[in-house]
Amino acid sequence: MKAIEKLSYQNSKGKFICVGLDSDRNKIPSHLLNEKDPILEFNKIIIQETVEHAAAYKLNFAFYEKEGVKGFESLLKTIQLIPSDILIIGDAKRADIGNTSKMYAQSAYEYFKCDSITLHPYMGEDSIKPFLEYKDKLNFILALTSNYGAEDFEKLKLEDGSFLYQKVIKNVVKWNSDNNCGIVFGATKIEELKENITSFGNLPVLLPGVGAQGGSLKDVIQCFASANRKNFLINSSRGIIYKDNSTNFGEVARQEIINLNNSVNEIL
Amino acid sequence: MKAIEKLSYQNSKGKFICVGLDSDRNKIPSHLLNEKDPILEFNKIIIQETVEHAAAYKLNFAFYEKEGVKGFESLLKTIQLIPSDILIIGDAKRADIGNTSKMYAQSAYEYFKCDSITLHPYMGEDSIKPFLEYKDKLNFILALTSNYGAEDFEKLKLEDGSFLYQKVIKNVVKWNSDNNCGIVFGATKIEELKENITSFGNLPVLLPGVGAQGGSLKDVIQCFASANRKNFLINSSRGIIYKDNSTNFGEVARQEIINLNNSVNEIL
Repeated sequence: MKAIEKLSYQNSKGKFICVGLDSDRNKIPSHLLNEKDPILEFNKIIIQETVEHAAAYKLNFAFYEKEGVKGFESLLKTIQLIPSDILIIGDAKRADIGNTSKMYAQSAYEYFKCDSITLHPYMGEDSIKPFLEYKDKLNFILALTSNYGAEDFEKLKLEDGSFLYQKVIKNVVKWNSDNNCGIVFGATKIEELKENITSFGNLPVLLPGVGAQGGSLKDVIQCFASANRKNFLINSSRGIIYKDNSTNFGEVARQEIINLNNSVNEIL
Repeated sequence: MKAIEKLSYQNSKGKFICVGLDSDRNKIPSHLLNEKDPILEFNKIIIQETVEHAAAYKLNFAFYEKEGVKGFESLLKTIQLIPSDILIIGDAKRADIGNTSKMYAQSAYEYFKCDSITLHPYMGEDSIKPFLEYKDKLNFILALTSNYGAEDFEKLKLEDGSFLYQKVIKNVVKWNSDNNCGIVFGATKIEELKENITSFGNLPVLLPGVGAQGGSLKDVIQCFASANRKNFLINSSRGIIYKDNSTNFGEVARQEIINLNNSVNEIL
């Protein structure tokens, strides 16, 4: 199944939550630290408990790379635990010159077998193209991010009065001839979301920043509801996976994703 | 020794070449494919042969990540082969929100023990800050890259008439209070290099794009010579490591770096 179809399938079943597996050995419940691979064990339980309710899992590569070779092993094994009808997003924020992007695409799509990846637009079209050649995958390109640094460049005004991130969105719409692009838009940027949502065309939107980063779920969903759009993913990482720190963390995570998803569906 | 001092030390000895270890099992001499770790063996020979002449080695992470867990192992072992007075650049092109960039910095600087990393500026200050906290390291931030996609966003004109990449350079100069920043500037962009070199302040410059990508060594060096600047690195990857494909590849690589370095010093 094409990645975009997996997402549509999940969205059509009323599932909108992406579980961010920002799994960190300094934050997982301490009883797991005796396991051979604590991160993998943690992810296994989170996945087991949330799998009926998750539209996607997002693997934040940084948390695994911090552990080096062992981390890459945990990452690979975690991905193998995720059922094939749920979108697997490699949140790797890559992009380089074409020759090199090709290798990053091979890593994410052929080695790790992600369905999707996040990409930096800065280096332009040929840095994105090797990813677009995977027509069945879904490439989420950074538009306006959730952090305060988004003001530094993404929100710079261009000669024609538009913002840099708006120019990025325009280009992504152009690059989307194979229906394999999406954008990342910070849930903390609600005014900009309202103003720009009609410019997204049919691009699916990955929205980080709800919860720990301060984005309001209600505001974001109302915005999508008003625009009559149902192709999006609300990412929640810390809010789901670290909500509880006891042996009960899996069940708490399960309840948390159910609550979040119910909140989304009530507003839609 | 602080990374910037390693670079100054190498530059002061007339060494300006950064050897790009874009090592790919599909391109290395076929006799190495029988080795247990062909990539590591290839790198070992390249390093042995070029070590007296190299100012830096640049590890292009994509080529290792393509091989997954094994690739990360080769990457780590390769880095351990490089003498401590030569700059080790992790060409990883990372950056994410602060919380995540912190993990990428730990990966590159604490796990892999690189001296330096390449970074995407798109997400702004807080995506770069966790790297800047490593005061002894050297953070090369992308300014104007060597690829044609540089036209898409990096060369967009801003409201005030300047280009996006110029705004990035301005910010990097500001972020450099601990003398641990540099910029990446494509050797294929000679006109822009001439026009902007005085705006770099004392930032060291990493210049990819000579050779396979079409950048002229002579033009680039003349530009630095005119500006009376000697803190830069000319990267050469394919031009050195794949110049020869026989059992003789190491000696040919050695001769190639000697030639390149001589060319630089003749012009300076």
